[in-house]
Amino acid sequence: MTLTRMLAEYASNIRFEDLPHEVVEYTKLCILDWYGSALAGKDEKPILSILELTQEWGGNEQATLITGGKSSIGNACLVNAAASHIVELDDIHKSSIIHAGTVVIPAAAAVAEAYGLSGKDLITAVAVGYEICYRIGEAVSPSHYYYWHNTATCGTFGSAAATAKLLNLNVEQIMYALGNAGTQAAGLWEFIEDGANTKQLHTAKAAYNGALAALLAKKDFTSASKILEGRRGFFNAMSEKYDADKITRNLGKEFKIIENSFKIHASCRHTHPAMDCILNIMKENALTHQHIQSISIKTYQTVLNITDNPNPDTVYASKFSSQFCAALIAMKGSASLIDYNNEILQSPELRNLMEKVSVEADPYYENAYPEKWGAKVVITMKDGRTFSEGTDYPKGDPEKPADKEELIQKFITMTIDKVWNAKEKVQAILQLEEISAAEMMEAGEESCKQIQ
Amino acid sequence: MTLTRMLAEYASNIRFEDLPHEVVEYTKLCILDWYGSALAGKDEKPILSILELTQEWGGNEQATLITGGKSSIGNACLVNAAASHIVELDDIHKSSIIHAGTVVIPAAAAVAEAYGLSGKDLITAVAVGYEICYRIGEAVSPSHYYYWHNTATCGTFGSAAATAKLLNLNVEQIMYALGNAGTQAAGLWEFIEDGANTKQLHTAKAAYNGALAALLAKKDFTSASKILEGRRGFFNAMSEKYDADKITRNLGKEFKIIENSFKIHASCRHTHPAMDCILNIMKENALTHQHIQSISIKTYQTVLNITDNPNPDTVYASKFSSQFCAALIAMKGSASLIDYNNEILQSPELRNLMEKVSVEADPYYENAYPEKWGAKVVITMKDGRTFSEGTDYPKGDPEKPADKEELIQKFITMTIDKVWNAKEKVQAILQLEEISAAEMMEAGEESCKQIQ
Repeated sequence: MTLTRMLAEYASNIRFEDLPHEVVEYTKLCILDWYGSALAGKDEKPILSILELTQEWGGNEQATLITGGKSSIGNACLVNAAASHIVELDDIHKSSIIHAGTVVIPAAAAVAEAYGLSGKDLITAVAVGYEICYRIGEAVSPSHYYYWHNTATCGTFGSAAATAKLLNLNVEQIMYALGNAGTQAAGLWEFIEDGANTKQLHTAKAAYNGALAALLAKKDFTSASKILEGRRGFFNAMSEKYDADKITRNLGKEFKIIENSFKIHASCRHTHPAMDCILNIMKENALTHQHIQSISIKTYQTVLNITDNPNPDTVYASKFSSQFCAALIAMKGSASLIDYNNEILQSPELRNLMEKVSVEADPYYENAYPEKWGAKVVITMKDGRTFSEGTDYPKGDPEKPADKEELIQKFITMTIDKVWNAKEKVQAILQLEEISAAEMMEAGEESCKQIQ
Repeated sequence: MTLTRMLAEYASNIRFEDLPHEVVEYTKLCILDWYGSALAGKDEKPILSILELTQEWGGNEQATLITGGKSSIGNACLVNAAASHIVELDDIHKSSIIHAGTVVIPAAAAVAEAYGLSGKDLITAVAVGYEICYRIGEAVSPSHYYYWHNTATCGTFGSAAATAKLLNLNVEQIMYALGNAGTQAAGLWEFIEDGANTKQLHTAKAAYNGALAALLAKKDFTSASKILEGRRGFFNAMSEKYDADKITRNLGKEFKIIENSFKIHASCRHTHPAMDCILNIMKENALTHQHIQSISIKTYQTVLNITDNPNPDTVYASKFSSQFCAALIAMKGSASLIDYNNEILQSPELRNLMEKVSVEADPYYENAYPEKWGAKVVITMKDGRTFSEGTDYPKGDPEKPADKEELIQKFITMTIDKVWNAKEKVQAILQLEEISAAEMMEAGEESCKQIQ
C-alpha cells in the first residue's frame, strides 16, 4: 500500500455528503476569497502577459477566464492561477506553507465548468485538493521550503487531486494523476532575490500541471506508483527531511481546509496584529482619529525589522510601514487594497497621524514569536482617556478566524474597481451548492464585461 | 556577470554565419533524426492520449503537429516532443546524459514555423539550444542524474534557449527565458520503477516549458538572474555536486552538438557493438546467413547482464536479446524499427540462426567499459572460413560517427509505414538552409495525410 494509493483511495471515496457543514461553509469562503484575489489581480502586467500568450495560442471555449471570455482548461489554469496570487491577499496554511487557493481552485473551477459539474462537486474537489497538498506540504516542511516554493511544488498535487476528483477517476487513475503531478513539481525560490514575475508563473504552472496530469490520467496515461516515498521520488529528491506519517495521520477524520488562514488587510502580515487592535478600539469606543494623541504599539522584534518605516514613499512601501498602516486603519476604519493608494500616501492628515504612532519591541510578544504573531496597542486620546487591546494572533489565523461578514467585506473592497455587482457574486458563491460551477464562473465573466 | 548572462550573451550574439559548415551539416542530421523518431512514435498510445487532450483544449493553427494538422505552439510542443522519444531511437549526448533532439527541436520547430522563420534560423537555434542544455547537463552530471531525468530538467533550458534565439530576444530577455526555464525544470526518475508513460510527459513538458518561458520573456516577464548558481537556484537545489566551469569553458569556441550520438539499430544500445561487427563482416565478405556455422561474441559483462536472452517472447524483449539481434542483422542486413516484428519473432529460420550465436564476457572489453562499449565478433562459415571484427564503440557514437547515408537509411526504414515520400522529406531537411521552417514541417504534414 503506497502513500499515493492511500491518498487516491481517500480522494476516490469521499463524497459531498461526507463533508461536515462547517467544512462546506469554510470551503465556500476559500472559493470566495480566491475569486476576490483573482479579480483584484487580473489587470496586473504579468497577468496580461500570460493572457496575451494564451490568446496567441488560442483554445476551445471550455472555461471562463477571470479576465473575461473563455478558453481551454489549460489556458484558464494559467491565467486564473497567476491572477489570484499577485496582490498577495490569497489564503495561506501555516504548517504546510502553502497558498492553496491560487493553485487548487483555478484548476478545479476550470475542469468543473468544462465538464458541466455542480457546485457541490466543486466544493468537494476543492476540499480534497487542499487536504492532499496540505498533507504533502506538512510532510516535507520546513526543509523542502528552503529551495522550493511549496505553493508551486506541493500545490501541483493539490490541483491534480482536485481535478482527478472532478473527473471521477478510479483509484488507479488518481494514482497516475498524483504520480504525474509529482514528477512535474517545480518552483525554486531563487526568483525572490530579484522580486521577479516568476511567482505568478509558479502558481499558473502548478494549476496547469496538476490539471494536465489528471486529464491525462483519465486516458490511462500511467505514472510512478510511489512518487512520494520512492527511492527517486519527491521526498528523497526534494527534501532534506520528511515525515511520511503526516500524509496519512487522521486522513479522512479531519479536514485541513479549516486550518486555512485568510488575510484581511492588504499589507504585510506583520502589520496586522496591531491593526486589528486599533480597529477594535476605534470601533468599540466610537473614537475619531482627529482626537488621537498617540498610538503605542508593542510587539515582536521582526515587526520592527521589516516594517519600522516612518516615511514610506511608494504605495508598495506603505504596505510595509507599521506607522502608515496603523494611521491608515485608525483614520479610515479599513485597510483594503483600494485604501492603499497614492492619494492617501500624500495626505497631510494621515502623515500627521503617523507621527503619533510609536512601535517598540516587547519581551512577551518577542518570546511568543513565531508561534504567535501578537501585539498590544495603547491609544491615548487628547482628552486623556486611554484604551488598550492586545492579541496573540492576527485576524484570519485559524486561532482567530475571520468570519463570513469580514470576508465578504474584503471581497467587496478588493474588487470594487473590477466588478459592479460584487454582492450578487458573493451571494452566488455562498450558495455554490445550489448552482453549477459554470454559473459561478460565468456570473463573474458577465460582470467583468459590464464594468469594462 | 552571472552564468545566465554569459549564456544569454552567447545566445544573443551567435549568427548562422558563425556556424562552421560541419556544424550546420551535423545540426541538419540531428533534425532529420528527430523528425524520423517523431514520425515513428506518433501513433503510440501515450502520444495519442496527449494528442486527444490537445484536441479537447484546441488552439490556433500556429504549428504543425507530427500527427497531422496544426495547433498552438504549446500543443505542438507537447505532441511532437512526446512522439519523438517513445521509440527510443532519438539522439543522446553521453557526457550530459541528455536526449536533446526530443526536447529542443520540437520547441524550436514550432516557434520557427509560427513566426515564419527560415531554415537557417532554425538550424542556428537548434545548435544554440543543444549547446546550452549540454553545458548545464555536464555541469550537474552525474549527481543530478540520480534523481532527475536530465533530458527533462536540463532540456528545459535547451528549449528555452533555442526558442529565445528564434524570437530574437535581447540579452535581458534571454536571461528571463533561462531563469523561468530553470524554475520550471522537473522530471523525477521514479517513474522508471513502473515503466510508466511519464517518460513521454517529461519530454513534452520540457519542450513546452522552455517555449513558454521564452514566449513570456518576449513580453518582458521577468525571472531570477542567477537561476543556475544562486543560493536557492538550480545547482544547489537539484545537484549534490556541480562544476560551474563547464557552463562557460570554451563557450563560443566549440559546438557541442557535434558530440551527439545517434542510434542506428532499434534495439538496446548494448547489443549494438556486436551488431555493427556482424553487419560489416556480412557485407564486406558478401556472406549469406544460410551458410553460417556460428557467431561468437566477446564483449563486456553488462551486455550479458542485460541482453543474454536466447528465447525472447515479445517484440520488446527481442530488442534486449543479443542472440536475437545478432541473428536478425546477419539475416536481414538491418535492424531498424520495422525489422523487429511478430513475424520475424516467430521465424524458424531466425530461431535456427539464433542457436548458433554465443555471447561471452571478455576481459579486454570488460576493462574498457563504460568509457568504451565494445565487442569482438567471430563468424565461422560452414565451409570452415572464419571472419572477425572488433570495435570499441557502437556505430553512431562521436568516436565512430554515423554518416549521412546511414542516418538517411535509418530515417527511411523507421518511417516506412508512416510516410510515403520519405526520400523527399529527407531531401527537404538536408536542404533546410534553403527553405523555411514551415516548409519543412508542412511537407511532413502533407505526406502524413497521404498515407493515412
